[in-house]
Amino acid sequence: MTEISKINHKIIETLRSSAYMSDAEVVECLSFFELRSYHKKDFFLREGEVCRLRGYVNKGCFRRYITNTHGKEVILHFALEDWWIGDLESMINKQPSVFNIQALEDSEVFCISEDEHERLCSAMPKYFSLHEEKARRSHFASLKRLALAQAGTPEDKFLQLMKQQPQLFQRVPMHYIASYLGIEPESLSRLRKRLSEKEKKS
Amino acid sequence: MTEISKINHKIIETLRSSAYMSDAEVVECLSFFELRSYHKKDFFLREGEVCRLRGYVNKGCFRRYITNTHGKEVILHFALEDWWIGDLESMINKQPSVFNIQALEDSEVFCISEDEHERLCSAMPKYFSLHEEKARRSHFASLKRLALAQAGTPEDKFLQLMKQQPQLFQRVPMHYIASYLGIEPESLSRLRKRLSEKEKKS
Repeated sequence: MTEISKINHKIIETLRSSAYMSDAEVVECLSFFELRSYHKKDFFLREGEVCRLRGYVNKGCFRRYITNTHGKEVILHFALEDWWIGDLESMINKQPSVFNIQALEDSEVFCISEDEHERLCSAMPKYFSLHEEKARRSHFASLKRLALAQAGTPEDKFLQLMKQQPQLFQRVPMHYIASYLGIEPESLSRLRKRLSEKEKKS
Repeated sequence: MTEISKINHKIIETLRSSAYMSDAEVVECLSFFELRSYHKKDFFLREGEVCRLRGYVNKGCFRRYITNTHGKEVILHFALEDWWIGDLESMINKQPSVFNIQALEDSEVFCISEDEHERLCSAMPKYFSLHEEKARRSHFASLKRLALAQAGTPEDKFLQLMKQQPQLFQRVPMHYIASYLGIEPESLSRLRKRLSEKEKKS
């Protein structure tokens, strides 16, 4: 029991604070997962593959992107620590994914297959509840992101990203942020300059 | 029992075919709902209100839209028959919604409050499963819609809409379709002309 409290894993923090697990329960829960390392630029999932794993980002950062009809990469999300990655639809329906999930830093991911996930949900109601809550919040977030993608200006999107994932700006190259905002890197520079001048004035 | 089989409600068809309910179960399930009528232009939900009901569109058509930072209405979805409407996040967290849901035709909606929905989920496992499956599919759909909103051209979005909700083009004014696609009505006319010429040539 003393061992686990010494390990500095984000997932342990989450299982304790959000799922209210005891140390013994954390140990049991983690026994269902496999910890995998991804080097910067490695893929967790590639377009055309069937997704086999759910992943919990314990350390690092990933981008989820698709290739549009003009062959251009467009970033949909950045997944930092405490995010789940994967493509549930591909996994459940056993169909090729349209998404790419790539590490932007050397990263550590706690991975679990769909079968093990189901077993874990049955074995540990606390994990099941955590998962349900995460799924619900992820659904709400995707609806809001859709509203922003559909109706927001690049400035709205930039300000929202600054609010929700401020650490991204220190960790991710600016051309990725531009891709997420749907603008060219030069437009992002101008946007940042404009906003910082606005801030100085106010 | 004979009564119910004579009623031509979309919801009955769904409860029978997707939730495998018997006539008696359909009757029990529907007793939790209230059937409400909405005239064209009536609101099911307005921005700033806390959403109190989940709604099943039995007949008619709604648009879900938000007002962006420039005061412009942007349509996120059209909900036709067999769609669920409402704002789950607003309902569960009891917070004002950012969405508007407005009838585009005279419509009929089977409505259920969150408390009744919970009671029904406990009372009827078949309804609970149907609901879980719907929630999952809706989540998958919103992720795909996000990818399309973020990475698709207006032409991609138009073709996708034609594939998924072809009946919309007969039922909804073109300026609403343009708003959904994020383009001006004039650009939509040009797009349709271009696509129909392409089709003639091929």
